[in-house]
Amino acid sequence: MSVAEKISIRELRNRVAGDLRRKLARESVLADEESLRPYECDGLSAYRRLPLAVTLPDTVEQVQDVVRYCHGNGIPIVARGAGTGLSGGALPIEEGVILSLAKFNKILDVDTGNRTALVQPGVRNLAISEAVSHLGLYYAPDPSSQIACTIGGNVAENAGGLHCLKYGLTVHNILKLKIVTVDGELVTIGLDSLDSPGYDFLALMTGSEGLLGIIVEVTVRLLPKPECAKVIMASFDDVEKAGNAVSSIIAAGILPGGLEMMDNPAIRATEDFVHAGYDTDAAAILLCEVDGTPEEVEDEIERVRRVLEASGCIKMQVAADDDQRQLFWSGRKAAFPAVGRISPDYYCIDGTIPRKALGDVLNRIEDLSSEYGLRVVNVFHAGDGNLHPLILYDGNIEGELERTEQLAGKILEMCIEVGGTITGEHGVGMEKIDHMCVQFNTAELTQFHAVKEAFDPGRLLNPDKAVPTLHRCAEFGAMHVHKGQLKFPEIERF
Amino acid sequence: MSVAEKISIRELRNRVAGDLRRKLARESVLADEESLRPYECDGLSAYRRLPLAVTLPDTVEQVQDVVRYCHGNGIPIVARGAGTGLSGGALPIEEGVILSLAKFNKILDVDTGNRTALVQPGVRNLAISEAVSHLGLYYAPDPSSQIACTIGGNVAENAGGLHCLKYGLTVHNILKLKIVTVDGELVTIGLDSLDSPGYDFLALMTGSEGLLGIIVEVTVRLLPKPECAKVIMASFDDVEKAGNAVSSIIAAGILPGGLEMMDNPAIRATEDFVHAGYDTDAAAILLCEVDGTPEEVEDEIERVRRVLEASGCIKMQVAADDDQRQLFWSGRKAAFPAVGRISPDYYCIDGTIPRKALGDVLNRIEDLSSEYGLRVVNVFHAGDGNLHPLILYDGNIEGELERTEQLAGKILEMCIEVGGTITGEHGVGMEKIDHMCVQFNTAELTQFHAVKEAFDPGRLLNPDKAVPTLHRCAEFGAMHVHKGQLKFPEIERF
Repeated sequence: MSVAEKISIRELRNRVAGDLRRKLARESVLADEESLRPYECDGLSAYRRLPLAVTLPDTVEQVQDVVRYCHGNGIPIVARGAGTGLSGGALPIEEGVILSLAKFNKILDVDTGNRTALVQPGVRNLAISEAVSHLGLYYAPDPSSQIACTIGGNVAENAGGLHCLKYGLTVHNILKLKIVTVDGELVTIGLDSLDSPGYDFLALMTGSEGLLGIIVEVTVRLLPKPECAKVIMASFDDVEKAGNAVSSIIAAGILPGGLEMMDNPAIRATEDFVHAGYDTDAAAILLCEVDGTPEEVEDEIERVRRVLEASGCIKMQVAADDDQRQLFWSGRKAAFPAVGRISPDYYCIDGTIPRKALGDVLNRIEDLSSEYGLRVVNVFHAGDGNLHPLILYDGNIEGELERTEQLAGKILEMCIEVGGTITGEHGVGMEKIDHMCVQFNTAELTQFHAVKEAFDPGRLLNPDKAVPTLHRCAEFGAMHVHKGQLKFPEIERF
Repeated sequence: MSVAEKISIRELRNRVAGDLRRKLARESVLADEESLRPYECDGLSAYRRLPLAVTLPDTVEQVQDVVRYCHGNGIPIVARGAGTGLSGGALPIEEGVILSLAKFNKILDVDTGNRTALVQPGVRNLAISEAVSHLGLYYAPDPSSQIACTIGGNVAENAGGLHCLKYGLTVHNILKLKIVTVDGELVTIGLDSLDSPGYDFLALMTGSEGLLGIIVEVTVRLLPKPECAKVIMASFDDVEKAGNAVSSIIAAGILPGGLEMMDNPAIRATEDFVHAGYDTDAAAILLCEVDGTPEEVEDEIERVRRVLEASGCIKMQVAADDDQRQLFWSGRKAAFPAVGRISPDYYCIDGTIPRKALGDVLNRIEDLSSEYGLRVVNVFHAGDGNLHPLILYDGNIEGELERTEQLAGKILEMCIEVGGTITGEHGVGMEKIDHMCVQFNTAELTQFHAVKEAFDPGRLLNPDKAVPTLHRCAEFGAMHVHKGQLKFPEIERF
């Protein structure tokens, strides 16, 4: 960036901050470098940019004021919740404004008759369950970051979690949204009832990563807390057998509350760290939890046991009590930091595949790992086919990061090839925008852009995230040979 | 219509039929009046129109050919499944072609590992469950017309049914669609895995009533059949108490497989017809079914019993065996024909309200019934707040049909007023298009049109259905005083 441009950004910043301070309280507009620094990235800290300014409105009317101002002046807007996202969805734009919903942190209403809660977007995921716990209720989606992440971001990313196999993603657990559109209008999407006439904008908005509107209110569904839960730990002498056992459990008509898998390197790293009582001789373990009434849980555990036996499981252990159950899970939850202890760096991949492909894909990851000379540790939400392979590397060794990124790309492409997707629960954001060019063809991307155009013709809401331009795909495609097939046959047209 | 216009339609018909017969087998294009007659309406037989022609393609390529031909010549296309829809969604356009998916009636694949089935759109809803029954699986959404209605239409209408409270609507039970777009492209929407990156076009397409694309393949989710089910019949001496009991059951954390309500006139009409063993002295009865493992069912029935007692229920009966359970349900399922026996005509309303408003709304329907001097019989899916009030009238009495339509309009507006919607499960189609003007404001309708434009800029797919033009709303609004409020303040702009 030249000196001239730097001055120009600074001048623009002063002007925009000045304008915005006439609409919001002075302390609600941040524009000096020190105050902006904490907003330069989200959980994907490899990408960093300073925004023009950060606004922290107190009211929906102030959100509308900020949005109208930006819309009127052609300034990009990036909405931000807790900033825990892992794909760079809240990464600032240098010439854009961050619209933080941090002050919208109130639970406005709990309706036990409809079993819903009306919450502001800055309410933490876990805070909802805590607030309704005394009523015997909870909010089901539980991303690992649930202590910190907020519901507005959960909606923007369509967050999942350990229990989404049984209880669904965010989209299945919300009923209504209030949205500020790019021209500052306040619009209600969805209703307090199960279905809504007209096109399903509630689902369209959920997972749209801040590209279609700013979420200012969310009505979530609440569920009764299960009476009891039990977990079974099963050891396998072969990774593929464990993968196939996952399919067999589901095919047997069992719907576990959680169904997780770890391979031997993950087991060893975790056991060293947490001492969860894992079987360190196993090639892979499955953790399978069932919940419900005590009788139902007994019955289901018995059925899981039979399927595991038939799947070639070599050892099984049902957690004796709730303490041991928590201990078993504490290992799984600590698996990422545990891996951090055995490698200078690791790269976490988030892809999803059809369950039936699990065994096959695990074998192919092992082959790729040998080919690239990089260790891969597998920890994942097996029940819904959401893989989190961790590639271990050393950023200080020349070329290792590049090889890691190449290997990660290969694994994501394999996910697509077997009918899966390049993201399970972390979103596309900045991180995977190029892989969207592999996931979708030109006709599909064009249709995405047509819908974006219907909501935000000026492309001011979170630009350059989630859905790549055809131009970007053309550039990426030119560098990127995908099994010898040209994936963008129509690029000449654009 | 003048003679000149009649000739012009006939000429157009001959030309279009001739063109299409060069693309499809001769017997797959119907164009004489006698052959077209069965297609002049769907389940909403009050509206009838002859289409230009009916096409019955055999293959996806032929669907593409028909769509490309129509697109190239500016001819509207109305897709049609079994024609069981109740809102006129498949009503022909006089200058348009009916695209029947009747020949797409094969189940292409059943995948027990992923617990999914790949089916063509003309497969009957019930045929899916029948085909996988030997595997212990079923397809959950069960609209009352499930013997006849087809899965393509279910997706287009986002069909529900008796069990949607627990198992969700069609949108919650499908994973992937193949769609032919208005320009004849074959596009896949959704994936075999739980989540998909990009905007949620799967949900957008579901319930879009044939306005965004032609469904040519559906991947549905299958569920394990519950081991056992029990139903409890509860009598109340007051309709409002019964309505409030519904809310209390849900608030207690119970999730029934089905939760239905009938008021006294519905009970009497049904009992006379079916002899289901209903309590004819009750002001209202609830039928509450729970399903799951035997232990779970025992436990839940006990909890339902306690809530019903606390809600002022005066009598309870658990069906002694599966035969009595079926008998209890046979009454509910025969309620509409039973009402047909006690009145020359009846008009069925389909609206949805938040559960907590049930008691209040029932009282207000009674007041409106007195005000209009028309009997109203209430039969509905209480658990998800889906009302089906039946207005009894005699079409031979001067003015009664008009008063019935007015009363129906009032009831739908009341549904909106309490936070509900003008349709529960029957769709908007032709029937409720004017009420969409009350449900949504100009900004919301404009946004619907912008999305339609993104998929079908020429408005050839099922035009004049589901989403009214602003012009139409302006005309309807001019005739329609809604509590003294002008609902379309911005009509001058358009």
